[in-house]
Amino acid sequence: MKSYLLSLCILLFAPAAHAASDAAVNTAWVVLASALVFFMQAGFALLESGMSRAKNAVNVMMKNYMDGCVGGITYWLVGFGLMFGSNLTGWFGMSHFAPQGGEPWDYTFLLFQMMFAATAATIASGAMAERTRYAGYLIGAVIISGFIYPVFGSWAWGGAYGGQGWLAKLGFIDFAGSTVVHSVGAWCALAGIMVLGPRLGRFANDGTPRVIPGHNLGLVTLGGFVLWVGWFGFNAGSTLGVTESLGLIALNTHLSAACGALGAMLALRSSSSPVLLTTTINGSLGGLVGITAGCATMGPGFAMLTGLVAGFVVVFGMRLLERLQMDDVVGAVAVHGFAGVWGTLAAGLFFNGDLFSWARISVQLIGAGMAFAWAFPMALMVYFLIAKTIGLRTSTQDEQRGLDYAEHAEVGYPEFGQTVTFDGSELTRRG
Amino acid sequence: MKSYLLSLCILLFAPAAHAASDAAVNTAWVVLASALVFFMQAGFALLESGMSRAKNAVNVMMKNYMDGCVGGITYWLVGFGLMFGSNLTGWFGMSHFAPQGGEPWDYTFLLFQMMFAATAATIASGAMAERTRYAGYLIGAVIISGFIYPVFGSWAWGGAYGGQGWLAKLGFIDFAGSTVVHSVGAWCALAGIMVLGPRLGRFANDGTPRVIPGHNLGLVTLGGFVLWVGWFGFNAGSTLGVTESLGLIALNTHLSAACGALGAMLALRSSSSPVLLTTTINGSLGGLVGITAGCATMGPGFAMLTGLVAGFVVVFGMRLLERLQMDDVVGAVAVHGFAGVWGTLAAGLFFNGDLFSWARISVQLIGAGMAFAWAFPMALMVYFLIAKTIGLRTSTQDEQRGLDYAEHAEVGYPEFGQTVTFDGSELTRRG
Amino acid sequence: MKSYLLSLCILLFAPAAHAASDAAVNTAWVVLASALVFFMQAGFALLESGMSRAKNAVNVMMKNYMDGCVGGITYWLVGFGLMFGSNLTGWFGMSHFAPQGGEPWDYTFLLFQMMFAATAATIASGAMAERTRYAGYLIGAVIISGFIYPVFGSWAWGGAYGGQGWLAKLGFIDFAGSTVVHSVGAWCALAGIMVLGPRLGRFANDGTPRVIPGHNLGLVTLGGFVLWVGWFGFNAGSTLGVTESLGLIALNTHLSAACGALGAMLALRSSSSPVLLTTTINGSLGGLVGITAGCATMGPGFAMLTGLVAGFVVVFGMRLLERLQMDDVVGAVAVHGFAGVWGTLAAGLFFNGDLFSWARISVQLIGAGMAFAWAFPMALMVYFLIAKTIGLRTSTQDEQRGLDYAEHAEVGYPEFGQTVTFDGSELTRRG
Repeated sequence: MKSYLLSLCILLFAPAAHAASDAAVNTAWVVLASALVFFMQAGFALLESGMSRAKNAVNVMMKNYMDGCVGGITYWLVGFGLMFGSNLTGWFGMSHFAPQGGEPWDYTFLLFQMMFAATAATIASGAMAERTRYAGYLIGAVIISGFIYPVFGSWAWGGAYGGQGWLAKLGFIDFAGSTVVHSVGAWCALAGIMVLGPRLGRFANDGTPRVIPGHNLGLVTLGGFVLWVGWFGFNAGSTLGVTESLGLIALNTHLSAACGALGAMLALRSSSSPVLLTTTINGSLGGLVGITAGCATMGPGFAMLTGLVAGFVVVFGMRLLERLQMDDVVGAVAVHGFAGVWGTLAAGLFFNGDLFSWARISVQLIGAGMAFAWAFPMALMVYFLIAKTIGLRTSTQDEQRGLDYAEHAEVGYPEFGQTVTFDGSELTRRG
Repeated sequence: MKSYLLSLCILLFAPAAHAASDAAVNTAWVVLASALVFFMQAGFALLESGMSRAKNAVNVMMKNYMDGCVGGITYWLVGFGLMFGSNLTGWFGMSHFAPQGGEPWDYTFLLFQMMFAATAATIASGAMAERTRYAGYLIGAVIISGFIYPVFGSWAWGGAYGGQGWLAKLGFIDFAGSTVVHSVGAWCALAGIMVLGPRLGRFANDGTPRVIPGHNLGLVTLGGFVLWVGWFGFNAGSTLGVTESLGLIALNTHLSAACGALGAMLALRSSSSPVLLTTTINGSLGGLVGITAGCATMGPGFAMLTGLVAGFVVVFGMRLLERLQMDDVVGAVAVHGFAGVWGTLAAGLFFNGDLFSWARISVQLIGAGMAFAWAFPMALMVYFLIAKTIGLRTSTQDEQRGLDYAEHAEVGYPEFGQTVTFDGSELTRRG
Repeated sequence: MKSYLLSLCILLFAPAAHAASDAAVNTAWVVLASALVFFMQAGFALLESGMSRAKNAVNVMMKNYMDGCVGGITYWLVGFGLMFGSNLTGWFGMSHFAPQGGEPWDYTFLLFQMMFAATAATIASGAMAERTRYAGYLIGAVIISGFIYPVFGSWAWGGAYGGQGWLAKLGFIDFAGSTVVHSVGAWCALAGIMVLGPRLGRFANDGTPRVIPGHNLGLVTLGGFVLWVGWFGFNAGSTLGVTESLGLIALNTHLSAACGALGAMLALRSSSSPVLLTTTINGSLGGLVGITAGCATMGPGFAMLTGLVAGFVVVFGMRLLERLQMDDVVGAVAVHGFAGVWGTLAAGLFFNGDLFSWARISVQLIGAGMAFAWAFPMALMVYFLIAKTIGLRTSTQDEQRGLDYAEHAEVGYPEFGQTVTFDGSELTRRG
């Protein structure tokens, strides 16, 4: 009998030994998701460069390339510890700075979170394009990814190594970061463009807006596609492991993006505007930002509604900013900020099995409001200090020549007769 | 004894509990494959935009961006139900329209199939580029992804929720859709270009073809690479789960693409033509289309032969269409249609362990033929009706100005002196 | 009792049967990694095309597209067998040529290795850009991927079907190929540019270097991003299976790349040079090449140090070559060769739990030295023979007109007034 049990034992352990372990499979999943989220950095670079003038193409690309680099290093150094370290008070963590060792999973988790921090930091680059000094911008990106983002992040997601953030304790839902990543990034961007002021020529003396068209709409479209592809990693990777719920999360992500583009198209048609490529793509990105909070906790019908509304939010949000004479080159504040607030609210409104609960909605509004209350004044102070010390805005001459020439001593398209397209003679500088 | 068994039981369940479940791992795999297939949409946009003139660059990009959006939504609404719903008759399904709930796997499966439907719809956009109205095109894309593609799809792949399609019952082999996706899309494209007629200036009065070069061959190449990368998701994802057979499928996909490019190069050299970049890339895409039907059921040597022949098919197919004075801007009919038929045949010819069986080959020919017999007249009718109602072809003036200016009120490269490259004076309009 | 055991048996086997098998999951992982490594081919094409002049944009793209095709086929035909076949002597394998059948895993392994061979072959294309004949280049790529790379590869990694390479026996550490792939490719590139000589106008008669700026820095940046994304597949895929160690490997890869860019920036600033986009991106690529050998066997702090030093190595390596009047269009020798040597050394210096061991360092130096001693003279001979037979360098007239016109009968940007940017009047041809 005993030998029979023994052989049974061997038989039974054998298949288990050949089955892939959860830990290893989850690691592979999160590494792939991290690669996809990193790819979003390329999407931002393409989108923002395409929406800028050719004379700033190199500068925009460089900012996106380098904020991933310095943002990643800073997040490793301090941000990760602030966000996920042992968290006694609920306000920030105080361990795991510059992590060297640890369990295998710690490295995987750090990699994924590092990509998120870089995303939060890079949102400002597009809004502030075409007039920001390279050094000043990079210092801002370091502070966002190393301090502003992780502190707020600890409130909602913190405590991987003990404790829990205060927003998490309230029951705040933000699955993959409509608020934590996107709105926080957008409020930093808003502060940046307020400190900078609009580009030369963006508004006439009487405040009439003038369109400054982006130089390469093909890059913008490719950027939109790349961001969309990367978002599957952003949202579905936020499970931090392989589960059957990935399917719904990815489907919601896709449908909301599609409906965001449709919503933007309808919003443009409803106001007899031409269906602009840039705005349509921003609509789909608004749908992606919007579904990020609630992608794991609603059905596909609500996801489509979330995206559709996000498309409208983006169109009217961009108009609102323009009316306020704020110059957001790529529409980042509307896409990541306004659609992020809407998405955070939608995650509360359309929560599985508890639709339209006032308690839940209030918590969502508190979370979204606290993101603004924390990130906006902090970033305002940071950019103001940068402006008063090393300088944030380039000189008028450098802005006219283009930042590629002024800051990098090279141009993006040396053979295609790049010219300075604006001479500034009849326009005044604001801000 | 009992307690011994109990502890054994605990021991044995423990490793099983820590092993990743098949369902979760398959979900992760199909979500990643869906992201790759969606990325192909970017590949199409790049390839088609690069092969068009700069004055239509925005329009082509927009069409590809939006047909993924509206195609996805329509497929969710009706296409999925027609293709995979409860299938009593073998001709189409009648359940699962606008699916809201269901098992986790249902969402994953829907996502993957949605990407396929968008691929089928987007094939027409390149063929019909530079002369099609935006609204008319999008209505066509909606009908392809919501009706023409899913009905044929149900014949070959339908019945996920009961029943089986009639082609499947015959033993038709089309693993990932040489016929179901690519040929169906191509026959719709063929109908579209026949209704539209060629671009102004594409053929002289006496029928002599004139080359209208694409404006950006770098975009074309990048598009080819992106499509190739995405095809790993298209073919290997069609397993719908993680199996050891993925390796052969992916290897066959890669080798066939490589041999398709080689085949196109040899075909060009054999007729003393210059080795054009666009044709070489189309050769590799022909190799990809060709192996799509049989990638799971042949060895690598036959996969290479399939790809090599597909490269020749593409080159001579493009010439045939040109001789017939049909204007397929990107070669979509040759790449997706002719190479799709060849690939469907090759899947029968080179079937594992049953090479050159006449019975099998006849079934393959029936399937390929039925795809044409269903999709071509349906699409012809659809495009004809669109042409007679809201209009399919732009005005001559709009075509000369470019669709970017005429339909989107913006241009792709505002700083690079975009000009209308053709004035139409000596040429006549056909079709 | 027996029936109790039987039911236990059924219970226990059930979960095992539903758990994903190791073999299937590893297959899925390696297929995805292969797709990522193939995507690097697109990254090379973008980077190299962007760093070349517009008149050679098509040619550079074509070379990268086709060397993946012909390199893959050749590797299947002979390279794989030389590298991994039954290996009696330790110097090369002699089985598994043109493999047709085999276990499922064999196909997966072949696919992944085929992508590596294409990477090794494609490194030369950028260095030799703008002056190499298409046919001559492709023959070189065939010989690199079919012979030079796999023979060295067998020394370090060979013997999958029996035996072991002699470098492996010494304990040589090169996890994913700093030496095996990147340095071998770079030494072939070095031989190529020595046989070719510099481009017309790259150096004045007195040896003063002249900058020939690349035509599209946006493509360069996108290429950098794509290579970085693909490198997650290159390094983490080299585990050949799903393990928990993937997280550290991917994190090290990312941090080293980020620090490589930072290192290049610091190196440029330290010598009062402008922070060029191209050099910064090369710095990050140097970081990626550098960490490739040791990514699985050091902590993140050492990975960052490896990357930082690699950034300096790239900057000063590029200067050294320029001083020697060698014309490496994209900096491939510095990025893949010099940073590869440094990375191979770093893998020995910072080896887990055995830091700064002289024994280990000597083995690493032997391996790096042998790569040069094998690949450089072999490639020199190959390119010399090509030059003396079918010809390697284009005529002066063709070089001035551009290879797109001369070799492919098409241009990359026909609507944007491409012009020949150099007339050669005052400059002399070298080499």
